[in-house]
Amino acid sequence: MVYDMISCGQFGQQLAELVNSSYRHIARCVYKESLVQEDLQGKNAIAGFYQFDKLDLSEIKWIHAFGAGVDDYLKQPTIQRDLILTRTLGYMDKRIGEYCLAYVLEDLKSVVSTHDNQRSHLWDRTNLNVLYNKKVLVLGTGFVGQGIASALRHLVEKIDGINGSGTSNPLFHQTMTIENLSQAHLEHYDIVISALPLTPSTRNFLNQAFFRLLNGAFFMNVGRGKSLVEDDLLWALENGHVRKAVLDVYQTEPLPSDSPLWDHPGVMMTPHHSGLTTFEDIRKSFEESVKAMKGGIRNQLFVNINQGY
Amino acid sequence: MVYDMISCGQFGQQLAELVNSSYRHIARCVYKESLVQEDLQGKNAIAGFYQFDKLDLSEIKWIHAFGAGVDDYLKQPTIQRDLILTRTLGYMDKRIGEYCLAYVLEDLKSVVSTHDNQRSHLWDRTNLNVLYNKKVLVLGTGFVGQGIASALRHLVEKIDGINGSGTSNPLFHQTMTIENLSQAHLEHYDIVISALPLTPSTRNFLNQAFFRLLNGAFFMNVGRGKSLVEDDLLWALENGHVRKAVLDVYQTEPLPSDSPLWDHPGVMMTPHHSGLTTFEDIRKSFEESVKAMKGGIRNQLFVNINQGY
Repeated sequence: MVYDMISCGQFGQQLAELVNSSYRHIARCVYKESLVQEDLQGKNAIAGFYQFDKLDLSEIKWIHAFGAGVDDYLKQPTIQRDLILTRTLGYMDKRIGEYCLAYVLEDLKSVVSTHDNQRSHLWDRTNLNVLYNKKVLVLGTGFVGQGIASALRHLVEKIDGINGSGTSNPLFHQTMTIENLSQAHLEHYDIVISALPLTPSTRNFLNQAFFRLLNGAFFMNVGRGKSLVEDDLLWALENGHVRKAVLDVYQTEPLPSDSPLWDHPGVMMTPHHSGLTTFEDIRKSFEESVKAMKGGIRNQLFVNINQGY
Repeated sequence: MVYDMISCGQFGQQLAELVNSSYRHIARCVYKESLVQEDLQGKNAIAGFYQFDKLDLSEIKWIHAFGAGVDDYLKQPTIQRDLILTRTLGYMDKRIGEYCLAYVLEDLKSVVSTHDNQRSHLWDRTNLNVLYNKKVLVLGTGFVGQGIASALRHLVEKIDGINGSGTSNPLFHQTMTIENLSQAHLEHYDIVISALPLTPSTRNFLNQAFFRLLNGAFFMNVGRGKSLVEDDLLWALENGHVRKAVLDVYQTEPLPSDSPLWDHPGVMMTPHHSGLTTFEDIRKSFEESVKAMKGGIRNQLFVNINQGY
């Protein structure tokens, strides 16, 4: 079967060129910056970042998403439950792992405040903290969680993971199921990083009940913004459950200008750039998806639509 | 032999307590904040940070230094060439390795400028750079250089080392001798970190002739300030041999207030705190030194006085 594909938005033109030059046996692809309904006439495949809120997707058999998180796509009311949804992972695991390590070390080595001292011409030899004796917990042990574990595991005392099933993974010393958090002694972890996908059960999961389990942890969210109740994080900072937070994702993006997160002294925030998609990622994941599709294989690029990631 | 020891300065009192409670078979120790000549009456051992410029050390048989770099001690004109000079390493390798990783990642992930954006309430999703495809060169493959390699090796494409003899080390993909730098293709390295000790041959070694070999490298100095010709680094920044520099050590410390390094946009400077000694380090290295001494072993804590480190 040769798909009639339309690609859209950022990187859409590059993908169309790739498809038409190297994947004619799989798809013919046209490109349009923004899609309206009539663009889908005669098309059964789409590639792009999510921009499909107002479209009827009932004729679409294959969507290739340009990001790793696919919650938007799955929410679309006309999406067919039996369509093929492939996603872009590329080198995002490594990039998000490096990002997490950068901010964990920023905190321990006081990078920003040392640079503020440079700006004030101040020579202040304060002692720095260390990573090698720290215990780390990663929520989510999938593609992104594994990238975080790969980046941190050689540098910390211990790195454990939490996932839906408790399935073990060699990158983590121990994995636990998300059902049993109250028995997981979360108060022992110095660093807690969420890489959870957004599903009905992870929506607003990082709330007061969760933060109550932490004891002065350094907390990061590189998963999905809608997993985090931002007011509950502020409560946790106020009450010592969280010592400092680094956020890359938010309930609403861009972060609204009146959000208290911008100016909170305990929050470092970054503009959802830890795993920003590059065309290199798209090319890699598109090639791997097509190869798997032809071989009848369903790897981690193929979203399990019932599971939601 | 039971030494008559005097300890001095920061951590000196804690060391005296440790010696007198646990090492009476090796030494008796008194403490004084600052030493004058008469304090050395009847003493044959000293422990402390360097403060001995004006003292006659000809009766001293053992010095236990509280830092890893011992160039000051070896310069002292009355120091006996056959004395035992032990030094403090402790966990400095890990701390300096973590520090290097923090600043390498600060650069690639734009940590400081992203935080400046937060301070200005600016949502700017600039692409970040990655570490996983970078080639790293470490000058000096001893205790500190190995700590840097341990921290970075799992995260980079390649990490090579340079030392006096070309002796290989399993933490580095390749090691080369410092004599042959012009054949070592230094222009291929993205990140160049100096962890050189200060000896007659490394003094002012990081000069124009050295920087000329680099091509837009990210350069760090965590070795010794007197290895770096600071004006030549400014020249290298101006001429694109160095893209950005992070310095922890300087020709003069604290860095003089009129140094152009404070305000140079291509320089991040930190106040010689990457491997700041803790009492935990001193305890660990003192215990290991005493144990080696009793066993007749000379490990890396024992300075080779002719070699200079």
